[in-house]
Amino acid sequence: MLGRMKIDGRPTRTIVPDADGISVRVIDQTRLPFALEERRLSTLAEAAEAIRIMIVRGAPLIGVTAAYGLAFAMREDASNDGLDRAVATLAAARPTAVNLRWALDRVAGNLRQTASRERFERAFAEAGRIAEEDVASCHAIGSHGGRLIADLARERGRRINVLTHCNAGWLAAVDWGTALAPVYAAYEDGIDLHVWVDETRPRSQGAALTAFELNGHGVPHTVVADNAGGHLMQHGEVDICIVGSDRTTATGDVCNKIGTYLKALAARDTGVPFYAALPFSTIDWSLRDGVAEIPIEERDGREVTHMTGRLDDGGFATVQVVSPGSPVANPAFDVTPARLVTGLITERGVAEASAEGLLALYPERRAAA
Amino acid sequence: MLGRMKIDGRPTRTIVPDADGISVRVIDQTRLPFALEERRLSTLAEAAEAIRIMIVRGAPLIGVTAAYGLAFAMREDASNDGLDRAVATLAAARPTAVNLRWALDRVAGNLRQTASRERFERAFAEAGRIAEEDVASCHAIGSHGGRLIADLARERGRRINVLTHCNAGWLAAVDWGTALAPVYAAYEDGIDLHVWVDETRPRSQGAALTAFELNGHGVPHTVVADNAGGHLMQHGEVDICIVGSDRTTATGDVCNKIGTYLKALAARDTGVPFYAALPFSTIDWSLRDGVAEIPIEERDGREVTHMTGRLDDGGFATVQVVSPGSPVANPAFDVTPARLVTGLITERGVAEASAEGLLALYPERRAAA
Repeated sequence: MLGRMKIDGRPTRTIVPDADGISVRVIDQTRLPFALEERRLSTLAEAAEAIRIMIVRGAPLIGVTAAYGLAFAMREDASNDGLDRAVATLAAARPTAVNLRWALDRVAGNLRQTASRERFERAFAEAGRIAEEDVASCHAIGSHGGRLIADLARERGRRINVLTHCNAGWLAAVDWGTALAPVYAAYEDGIDLHVWVDETRPRSQGAALTAFELNGHGVPHTVVADNAGGHLMQHGEVDICIVGSDRTTATGDVCNKIGTYLKALAARDTGVPFYAALPFSTIDWSLRDGVAEIPIEERDGREVTHMTGRLDDGGFATVQVVSPGSPVANPAFDVTPARLVTGLITERGVAEASAEGLLALYPERRAAA
Repeated sequence: MLGRMKIDGRPTRTIVPDADGISVRVIDQTRLPFALEERRLSTLAEAAEAIRIMIVRGAPLIGVTAAYGLAFAMREDASNDGLDRAVATLAAARPTAVNLRWALDRVAGNLRQTASRERFERAFAEAGRIAEEDVASCHAIGSHGGRLIADLARERGRRINVLTHCNAGWLAAVDWGTALAPVYAAYEDGIDLHVWVDETRPRSQGAALTAFELNGHGVPHTVVADNAGGHLMQHGEVDICIVGSDRTTATGDVCNKIGTYLKALAARDTGVPFYAALPFSTIDWSLRDGVAEIPIEERDGREVTHMTGRLDDGGFATVQVVSPGSPVANPAFDVTPARLVTGLITERGVAEASAEGLLALYPERRAAA
């Protein structure tokens, strides 16, 4: 199971079943970009912890990890009670991620029709299928979105500048990624492109992860403070914005990393197309008004007050960067209303960000709606 | 010359002429918020360096410091050549700040009509007058802007939430500040208010300086990542935005710290009034299109890649926070078009952000225009 995405020429994936058949190996993303270290997960507690403290992060990867977590739980307690408790534990690890719940529902639904003694193997295999489906899904997103970049390149006859926020690259998925899949696909097709990478405070996933993976794969890019994107768009330095989505309403509202909404506003104000790339598993068909209905995770204020990084001597340190004694707030996501979204890039194609647009791509949902 | 603004109850100013009559003492703002240290400036080189490395920062304070810098230069070389060289040196220290040039023009114009041997004393006194005029100007901005906050408090019958970006408080001026003067004025009048403080990457002037001065003066506040403001506005958590301006066009475009434009867009999208507070000295009457005409200072990428802060043991460290090997860009300002600005709060009152609005407050400019 070699990945297509590369770190300095070496194909890699974020999560790989171990040869022992009872555990998985993941890249410890809290150690990136300064160290590339693997962790082995083999218990429910380890999987939940990995999700909670963001050893793994990104909507698709969280889903796959949670599915493996359910498998591990079945080795510990394969009863229905054990299953219910495991689902609750994993769901609580990151409350916003809709496809964490989607993955849990899929695996748990399957297990409820499975005898206890077969539950571990069934869940482990199902988690592997979710991973492979995610790779296929991200690859398809890359093809559809890559064409948007290729079209712009042909139309403008010059290097195309893409702006992205946070990390919705292969590190957020298993391979390819969502928002970055179109970038990788276009890059593989030889399109001349460059990516503006938002730092993405407070956790700096752009500066740490998106920059790391673009650099590792050889894609030209530049890191900027989150504040810079509007200025770049005003001056014609951005041709297209592509972001991920942690949760998408049936009407096309996009809940993504805090600050996404601000970039969508700038894109609208300056005429830059703004796309969200997402697998169908992040669509929450029950929601119609993202701003009103989606609860926003409030994370630890220490993510704002402190930053961890590498010292000149190669060691690591955590420094306080906010004035001592000042309170902080740390909402982790915001909602970009569909009216600001040019289109949604999914594994099935590019949809208009509206109920009708999504139903056109997912007609099987018409009956349900 | 006691300041009205307080640090833990002690009245303070950012720049004070020393008793020796030939130097000034300034707060070293690169040491804030963790240490409150003074520096003595007595040479042209020291004044230019203080502006360049941001020991002093903020449009009004830069202007006053530059004026003192010209005075120091006259002790070193009071010739016309010496004057021209000093003006060039100080102007180059921060290319964007229009009232740095304004202060230099004012003092230099005065000195050109002054005999060489009297130039130092004349310049030193003139710098002091600029400082006192700035205090009076900021105080007037506070009165005019404070009424806007008081009106909202009366209208809404509850605590008023103000959002500000960067630091345009008393640390950016001599006393009171510009964007924060209305906050201090309303607070002194007993209005129940709370300030959302944007961190303001890459230099974190909000988290470090605005938080420090609000905390020191006792004003309720909360620090948030720059990404959070749009979300807060979507959810009714912001009643008014007030920012500063480093340069304002004759048509009301506002050039301020990078990221200001994004907050103005969110304010417009959510119906939150958005004001810039500025002394007349930041108005560049020669400019009509801020986005097209104002050159944007590109600062050292290390401000993005590295952050300095306090370790748990009380020491200080600088850590790298961007993936090694990734290029960075660091534009320091952006331009908020007048169409997004509800009003400009100046020492003369609140103007509509338009050529007509500004000329109504500054009718003496009609002839010039």
